[in-house]
Amino acid sequence: MPHDTPSASTPEFASLEAVFSRLDPDRSLILTDEILEGICSASLGQLRRLIVPRGEAAKTWGSLRRLFAGMSSVGVDRGWTLYALGGGSVSDLGGFAASTWMRGIGFAALPTTLLSMVDASLGGKNGIDFYGSKNLIGTFRIPDRIVCDLSLLAFLDPVQFASGMAEAVKHAIIGGEAYFSLLESCLEKGRGPEGFSHLRLDHESLRSLVEGSQRIKLDIVGRDPREAGERRILNLGHSFGHGIEMATGIPHGHAVSLGITFACALSRRKGLMDADTEARLLGLLRGFGLPTDPWVLREPAVRKKVVASLGGDKKRYGDSLHFVLPEAPGKVEVIPLLLSDLRAFFEEELG
Amino acid sequence: MPHDTPSASTPEFASLEAVFSRLDPDRSLILTDEILEGICSASLGQLRRLIVPRGEAAKTWGSLRRLFAGMSSVGVDRGWTLYALGGGSVSDLGGFAASTWMRGIGFAALPTTLLSMVDASLGGKNGIDFYGSKNLIGTFRIPDRIVCDLSLLAFLDPVQFASGMAEAVKHAIIGGEAYFSLLESCLEKGRGPEGFSHLRLDHESLRSLVEGSQRIKLDIVGRDPREAGERRILNLGHSFGHGIEMATGIPHGHAVSLGITFACALSRRKGLMDADTEARLLGLLRGFGLPTDPWVLREPAVRKKVVASLGGDKKRYGDSLHFVLPEAPGKVEVIPLLLSDLRAFFEEELG
Repeated sequence: MPHDTPSASTPEFASLEAVFSRLDPDRSLILTDEILEGICSASLGQLRRLIVPRGEAAKTWGSLRRLFAGMSSVGVDRGWTLYALGGGSVSDLGGFAASTWMRGIGFAALPTTLLSMVDASLGGKNGIDFYGSKNLIGTFRIPDRIVCDLSLLAFLDPVQFASGMAEAVKHAIIGGEAYFSLLESCLEKGRGPEGFSHLRLDHESLRSLVEGSQRIKLDIVGRDPREAGERRILNLGHSFGHGIEMATGIPHGHAVSLGITFACALSRRKGLMDADTEARLLGLLRGFGLPTDPWVLREPAVRKKVVASLGGDKKRYGDSLHFVLPEAPGKVEVIPLLLSDLRAFFEEELG
Repeated sequence: MPHDTPSASTPEFASLEAVFSRLDPDRSLILTDEILEGICSASLGQLRRLIVPRGEAAKTWGSLRRLFAGMSSVGVDRGWTLYALGGGSVSDLGGFAASTWMRGIGFAALPTTLLSMVDASLGGKNGIDFYGSKNLIGTFRIPDRIVCDLSLLAFLDPVQFASGMAEAVKHAIIGGEAYFSLLESCLEKGRGPEGFSHLRLDHESLRSLVEGSQRIKLDIVGRDPREAGERRILNLGHSFGHGIEMATGIPHGHAVSLGITFACALSRRKGLMDADTEARLLGLLRGFGLPTDPWVLREPAVRKKVVASLGGDKKRYGDSLHFVLPEAPGKVEVIPLLLSDLRAFFEEELG
């Protein structure tokens, strides 16, 4: 049955083992990567599964073709549901495949990373990469169901957790003081002699961190599911971030953290943000182990790629781009900027 | 801007030359095949164009990839509109590409065949073929604009025109007596010593033929854009038709004509249709040069393919299929039938 009109769906919090035990094996297909398949093997039982490469490699044209070939051999019809068990790459690929196979079958997201719980699995954007542009081909398709098993966060290494925190911080900048302070207090709770570790956070803190982030995003998506206007603010940090991620291969959140850093610098230049606010924002990113120093961009060839990627941004219209400028927690602005001005700013900023 | 929520749009009747002359060359991409590109070359002027193979060959996985590569090199962004100039293959491929490129750009259909004017360009279904199944991968995306230039119908050979008439007859069976009689009178007007020829129809007859068919389809699509229920009746003749088309390579409408013939035979068996009605329906198909005798299915290997294809039908749910049974003009019924029963009926019918 076709389900691809976006509408917000509220994430559930539950153990995936319990979810798997209740699925109909004749109408449920699990899409996951080889590592998670190993971790969840026992609880997956007899459920049919298709395996994709871990990370961004799942989102290639060839990977999409292999997934469709697998769905064909399983005999997936409109009565089936595809369960994307994994991070954002698995749900981006799976959501696109589920929304286009027979023009739409059931789709559920079972996010296993923080990044996916607070961002990628929500809001219905999906897609694959093409010719060096992230998510160039995709659809809008809200999952019918999102289930977060917080116990899986213990499997994440510090870099993976930090990557998700970049989106949480982005939501805090958009959402305002309440959630921003909640993140600051999580940072305090998780801080130890060697820095922040999410393993120090109790279940309740993790849940309020995840739920708070989800609420901010889903509120916006609910009002503007197809990014006709307001939803554009969720692209904060992503215009440069996508290019940095594609050009350097650093994790998504780390690239977004640098993207937010550039956006802050541009706001400062335009007199829209004061030095204290910038220090507070960048301090939160750094506290969670995220980069605010663009050393990965020191190579001219890498910078060139980032600059070129701005032209492939989906927010581009002709010569300009809807760029998101942060001002303070709870205050961001979307303004059209000339691509040429953005490129000049980027080069100047890197010196 | 994303536009992929279905809603009916009313086709315009105009000369394509006039349409082309008003397009913005910096935001318009023409998708067409090599023959039409030749025919329209002068009026296309400086407009950017991408060329796909003629016919069903346009709708392969590889063809979709080449189209996306072309859109990438042209630099198509969300401010652009893709104009599908051609038959159903071009609009099926183009509609899918336009609905997924950057998650949706502008899309317009410029149908050049009768089949496309009365059916394929309307209703928003698009897609490509995959692993031997027609339109297995696609979306629902109503074109922002549909322009029919009836003068192009003079370029169609009798087989191409007949192929479109199969969908018009299907709409007549669904729509009822008024449009059914209109088609019977068109048949009379176009009849000559060697049979029917559309070249004998005047502009007004062609226009009422095309508009009447469009109206019946758009009424249904408007009430059920995503085929949750009523729209299923538009699949009349297509469950067997798709398989016959894929297995034999005969034109779409000719395969649908055989599909309607099988559906009539099944209705007769079930006591839902009398012999006179069947004779009238099949007589209309034959009058327009369409087959009602399944001689193309005489090879066992071909029959086997058709039977196998029923399992890949998008209307399949588990072991059964929503099958459309015609009873009389204005009266059709959708009933779930077991795949095994349909297969047995098909074999018996062929003797």
